[in-house]
Amino acid sequence: MALVGTGFMGRVHSIAYAILPSFYPDLPPVRRRVVVDVTKGLARKGAHQFGYDEWAVDWRSVIERPDIDIVDIVTPNDSHRPIAEFALDHGKHVLCEKPLAVTVEDARLMAEKAARTTTVSMLVFNYRRCAAVLEAKRLIDEGGIGRILNFRGLYLQDWAMPEGTPWTWRFGAAQSGSGALGDIGSHALDIAHYLVGEIDSVAAAAETFVKARPRPGETGAAPGSEMAPVDVDDCTIALLRFSNGALGTLEASRFAYGRKNFLSFEISGSKGALAFNWERPNELRFYSAEDRGDVQGFRTILTGPAQPNGELFWPIPGIGAGYIETQVAQIGEFVRAIGGGARTDSGFAHGYRIQQVMEGILAASRSGRWESVARAS
Amino acid sequence: MALVGTGFMGRVHSIAYAILPSFYPDLPPVRRRVVVDVTKGLARKGAHQFGYDEWAVDWRSVIERPDIDIVDIVTPNDSHRPIAEFALDHGKHVLCEKPLAVTVEDARLMAEKAARTTTVSMLVFNYRRCAAVLEAKRLIDEGGIGRILNFRGLYLQDWAMPEGTPWTWRFGAAQSGSGALGDIGSHALDIAHYLVGEIDSVAAAAETFVKARPRPGETGAAPGSEMAPVDVDDCTIALLRFSNGALGTLEASRFAYGRKNFLSFEISGSKGALAFNWERPNELRFYSAEDRGDVQGFRTILTGPAQPNGELFWPIPGIGAGYIETQVAQIGEFVRAIGGGARTDSGFAHGYRIQQVMEGILAASRSGRWESVARAS
Amino acid sequence: MALVGTGFMGRVHSIAYAILPSFYPDLPPVRRRVVVDVTKGLARKGAHQFGYDEWAVDWRSVIERPDIDIVDIVTPNDSHRPIAEFALDHGKHVLCEKPLAVTVEDARLMAEKAARTTTVSMLVFNYRRCAAVLEAKRLIDEGGIGRILNFRGLYLQDWAMPEGTPWTWRFGAAQSGSGALGDIGSHALDIAHYLVGEIDSVAAAAETFVKARPRPGETGAAPGSEMAPVDVDDCTIALLRFSNGALGTLEASRFAYGRKNFLSFEISGSKGALAFNWERPNELRFYSAEDRGDVQGFRTILTGPAQPNGELFWPIPGIGAGYIETQVAQIGEFVRAIGGGARTDSGFAHGYRIQQVMEGILAASRSGRWESVARAS
Amino acid sequence: MALVGTGFMGRVHSIAYAILPSFYPDLPPVRRRVVVDVTKGLARKGAHQFGYDEWAVDWRSVIERPDIDIVDIVTPNDSHRPIAEFALDHGKHVLCEKPLAVTVEDARLMAEKAARTTTVSMLVFNYRRCAAVLEAKRLIDEGGIGRILNFRGLYLQDWAMPEGTPWTWRFGAAQSGSGALGDIGSHALDIAHYLVGEIDSVAAAAETFVKARPRPGETGAAPGSEMAPVDVDDCTIALLRFSNGALGTLEASRFAYGRKNFLSFEISGSKGALAFNWERPNELRFYSAEDRGDVQGFRTILTGPAQPNGELFWPIPGIGAGYIETQVAQIGEFVRAIGGGARTDSGFAHGYRIQQVMEGILAASRSGRWESVARAS
Repeated sequence: MALVGTGFMGRVHSIAYAILPSFYPDLPPVRRRVVVDVTKGLARKGAHQFGYDEWAVDWRSVIERPDIDIVDIVTPNDSHRPIAEFALDHGKHVLCEKPLAVTVEDARLMAEKAARTTTVSMLVFNYRRCAAVLEAKRLIDEGGIGRILNFRGLYLQDWAMPEGTPWTWRFGAAQSGSGALGDIGSHALDIAHYLVGEIDSVAAAAETFVKARPRPGETGAAPGSEMAPVDVDDCTIALLRFSNGALGTLEASRFAYGRKNFLSFEISGSKGALAFNWERPNELRFYSAEDRGDVQGFRTILTGPAQPNGELFWPIPGIGAGYIETQVAQIGEFVRAIGGGARTDSGFAHGYRIQQVMEGILAASRSGRWESVARAS
Repeated sequence: MALVGTGFMGRVHSIAYAILPSFYPDLPPVRRRVVVDVTKGLARKGAHQFGYDEWAVDWRSVIERPDIDIVDIVTPNDSHRPIAEFALDHGKHVLCEKPLAVTVEDARLMAEKAARTTTVSMLVFNYRRCAAVLEAKRLIDEGGIGRILNFRGLYLQDWAMPEGTPWTWRFGAAQSGSGALGDIGSHALDIAHYLVGEIDSVAAAAETFVKARPRPGETGAAPGSEMAPVDVDDCTIALLRFSNGALGTLEASRFAYGRKNFLSFEISGSKGALAFNWERPNELRFYSAEDRGDVQGFRTILTGPAQPNGELFWPIPGIGAGYIETQVAQIGEFVRAIGGGARTDSGFAHGYRIQQVMEGILAASRSGRWESVARAS
Repeated sequence: MALVGTGFMGRVHSIAYAILPSFYPDLPPVRRRVVVDVTKGLARKGAHQFGYDEWAVDWRSVIERPDIDIVDIVTPNDSHRPIAEFALDHGKHVLCEKPLAVTVEDARLMAEKAARTTTVSMLVFNYRRCAAVLEAKRLIDEGGIGRILNFRGLYLQDWAMPEGTPWTWRFGAAQSGSGALGDIGSHALDIAHYLVGEIDSVAAAAETFVKARPRPGETGAAPGSEMAPVDVDDCTIALLRFSNGALGTLEASRFAYGRKNFLSFEISGSKGALAFNWERPNELRFYSAEDRGDVQGFRTILTGPAQPNGELFWPIPGIGAGYIETQVAQIGEFVRAIGGGARTDSGFAHGYRIQQVMEGILAASRSGRWESVARAS
Repeated sequence: MALVGTGFMGRVHSIAYAILPSFYPDLPPVRRRVVVDVTKGLARKGAHQFGYDEWAVDWRSVIERPDIDIVDIVTPNDSHRPIAEFALDHGKHVLCEKPLAVTVEDARLMAEKAARTTTVSMLVFNYRRCAAVLEAKRLIDEGGIGRILNFRGLYLQDWAMPEGTPWTWRFGAAQSGSGALGDIGSHALDIAHYLVGEIDSVAAAAETFVKARPRPGETGAAPGSEMAPVDVDDCTIALLRFSNGALGTLEASRFAYGRKNFLSFEISGSKGALAFNWERPNELRFYSAEDRGDVQGFRTILTGPAQPNGELFWPIPGIGAGYIETQVAQIGEFVRAIGGGARTDSGFAHGYRIQQVMEGILAASRSGRWESVARAS
């Protein structure tokens, strides 16, 4: 495989490929052949730290190589489409970081191209792969909480709050499409879609609390002279109406002090409820109205081998599975799909669907009224 | 004083009057003179259990008595206006349960009448009086969390969920005005107003999950033949825009299994954050970005004597203050205002303001667009 | 009834008597006749704030009055025996704060005298009366956690930690018998006895971290010249062996920063477990190994009407019952016993038994070896 | 390096070696050369899944190979001494799973041999390497909680509770030395020693709740006929006296339903307190009595880059570091020590010290009196 990008996500994907055999011994090992980045220095460093045979700076020539079957894209959002389309055109399997694209139109074109190819294309929605969310899905599917009435989703962080936090591509609409909404809100929407279902319409508001950021530059220019504008949302809030009649709320924010990686949801149904937050990733809370009256209460399930995909979660519940394990599960599913195993449910078509919801939210935050998601293509 | 109504709220108000001297020895004791309810049986039972000298069934004649200075109204919402106006017209001090009225027009008229009298009129927003919320107010006022950016408010219960739960006036718009929104959402809106500020505009959606309820009747009619329609919201969700630029979300629901009395908020500011939920009433969570980097984290403050109004909260933090103490604080403030102490900030004018916000939310849930609160009068 | 003592406990007992009819309308109301304290000022103030008809400074003459049926003792430990014995000798019902006495020999004599009288004598172990502990008892009795294997009990506070905290009788062995052990550890031992059973033998260690305290005096003497020695334990730790084979640990400390009123236990059995801490008094945690494998986890039960003695805990779970409600339950049980209702299980005989365990712990902390509790009489 | 043992610990050590370069790019990569187990099948499978070049069944001949520098021992406790001594005799660096040995005498001999060699020998106490414990150490060292007064340590699991759980070497004294005490209690004692200091004397009790277990066999013998005796502790409780005057409690149990991997401690000092439990591995709770009075409370620090060894814990606090990261930290420290970096503080001498404490606890549980740890050699 070839990895395009050596940032944080490149690092974690590489770790996941490296330890895949220990978790899924039945899957074929994936050889880390080439890592690509825009400078020789970054590429060389990536190869050394992440365990690749080679490094390169031109992703096109790497993708064209016949010994490359898999292209893993961990670059800024605006390059997802060219790299993914090039890889699909050359018959490669593609794993791409979320969100799929910068615009819903780009996402549509990517999904259409993926639909015409026979290779596997997949979007990384790793948080959904943890034991707690898999168990939530199982409980919902077997009717454990009855008909779903409400979804409450939050993805809150606070890294962007200090005003001195420098500008990165995540603050620019041209490269990222949106701010907190696409960067982290997309995970919450993915989970909403996975656990609750299709979203029909949305109302929303968005805010950019800090309008400009120091531009990180090589020159020693004085602060202030190097400010770059922030044209994406620091925080987006939304109301959701699902096709099945459920109501939902969503908030994505980089401006919630004290919340570091707070991907959280609560789902209320006619027979029970489920609650989760990623800051306590090994815990799923489950309330069943079918328990005896005097002992009803949210159970805190400490996830482990009893959960779906339990082999990932070590022989002891509570041993401390975390972020790495979700990436292993993600890539394990990708590799299994390549081998002809069960079809993934987070292909580019799904990525396009989530992009439509995000587009609906952006539209609603501009229009001041409910917007239909279907029209957002 | 005279109490009108002997339900649950009548009971707790009576307890609060009874033990007021132990918490606020400087306040004059209030004599529980007459309790009123619609039947002799209810009124007599109330007098016995709640410690009143007398009972009666006609509230008008009781209010007219010269030995009654205070009228405490704990009846269904639609009777708040006639009783309160009659009491104000007779020069009595009035304490009234929330929400102020069934319609915003009624609320406006009540607020106008109260503004023309010299007696004290006050609405019961007891949850705001607990130590945790008072401490939150103090921290916000002294700049402890900086400029407020986000409010997240929830008031969730689950008592209405079993479909067999019988119809009460809380399910009928004519008597209650709205459902979860007015019954419990009003507390969350009161706190939003108290801690964050004026609400300018709202978007919303509401749902009635169970459309009819068994009518509790004297006849032994078969179930099904006696269903009464539910024409109020079981659940309302809303987005809020505050005058100071903050964004907010609100949910009021009687359909959230596992949440029993979950009045909860989180407020994020430019320098920190506060979080609270009433199911853990003695805890306020506070995050300060001014703590040293490696020890930043939400503090769980166990409330007690160090908090504002600390005399209410016993000499030991964590000893377990609860619902009663909030009612004592509420009534203590009311009696102090009568005596000429500091003016209350939850007079009828405030109740009218909260009613305007609720009206805006109802309007927005019908219109499918953002509604200005100011226009909601 | 007559109350002897106007400190914090006098205040809460008085509140409980005042509101008893609202919680237990079937019980006869108890008239607060006389309050007694050592000075006229204290006694007069108590009468005013706590709602007594009269006040006095000589407890003997008050107890002798024929219109006094009940004597409620809330004085320092060393006066429990003379007052209680005098009251019993005069045929009065006695409610006494824990611990029963300063020495195990005193406790034995008091229990023997109580056994010879027909009036009701009872010790205040109020924390055991909360909904969570009552529910724990019910679950244990019905086999919900199987055979009990382990008890872990803690009662931690931190009020004594600042070295400048002045000396009170709670720091002197002559008046208090022991320190943290008797003052708060007795509650934990009471719960251990109630939920697990008889304690056979103990090992222990005790420590006095601050050896002298400023003596609170009327004179303006310089600090240091007025230090009083502390000759009781600031912290006691113990191992417990129960008659039924269970193992236990116990810690009572006034020196645990951050723990304000942390009365906590966890009980592990062959089929499940229970956990509780008073700082979250409305929550009982229950784990059942009989739940389906993938949804096993500690349930957080929010206590309310579904629990034993549910009438005490309001119509809504999670509404916030607290300290007052435990005192109402305590006094309700006392008044019911006087009326001939079910016999209390916290009579003086029980208080003597707990005193024996405390004596065993003190002995073991001196001897450096396991001590039998039975020999501790 | 060569790995001896292919069980669970062999798997996690191998994962840690594989991803070491991504976390510590400055350390030399360690080549996974040979994996050893007692059967060809196990060894071959280990080589495949864990990424080793070769496999073998005779550990002696592997250790003798000149291309092996490091021997990693993850076998049952009774083989630690022969393998480690053989490796030390052949000049190899040794990493050994805890506890060091089956008896304190074995541990002494191993520590003496290690003291005479120049290679690095180290014991795996991985839990101590997590961010929360490292931060706790930093706070203690800088005086953040003042003088330490109390330690409360627990390591609770429940895997052994079903009576049908088959016998393994962990239930036999000959192979394991002790039960819960050595298997998991050793981690808690290691942390006590690391954070609080030397332990002087102990009192203890131990219990074996299930006296015999089904022997896992190849034959299809009927259940019951194949029971093996359990001669180690299912649960051990102890009181600790530290050299610095602090008191402590310890419990190690495999019989605590609901607790899956509950390694927990609370440390109270004269200026604050720290609390942690591994089931929430990314959280350290810290109380400072130097905070302003009204905002004192346990902070929940979500660990991340701000903590010591922060490079291990990803760029985002709360991203979900877990068990793997502790093993990477452990092995990173080992490899760094081999390269001449800072000397490890968990060498065999330390392992011997912990073994002495365990021996003291075993002795005290037999003698029924306090035992000095120093004499336990």
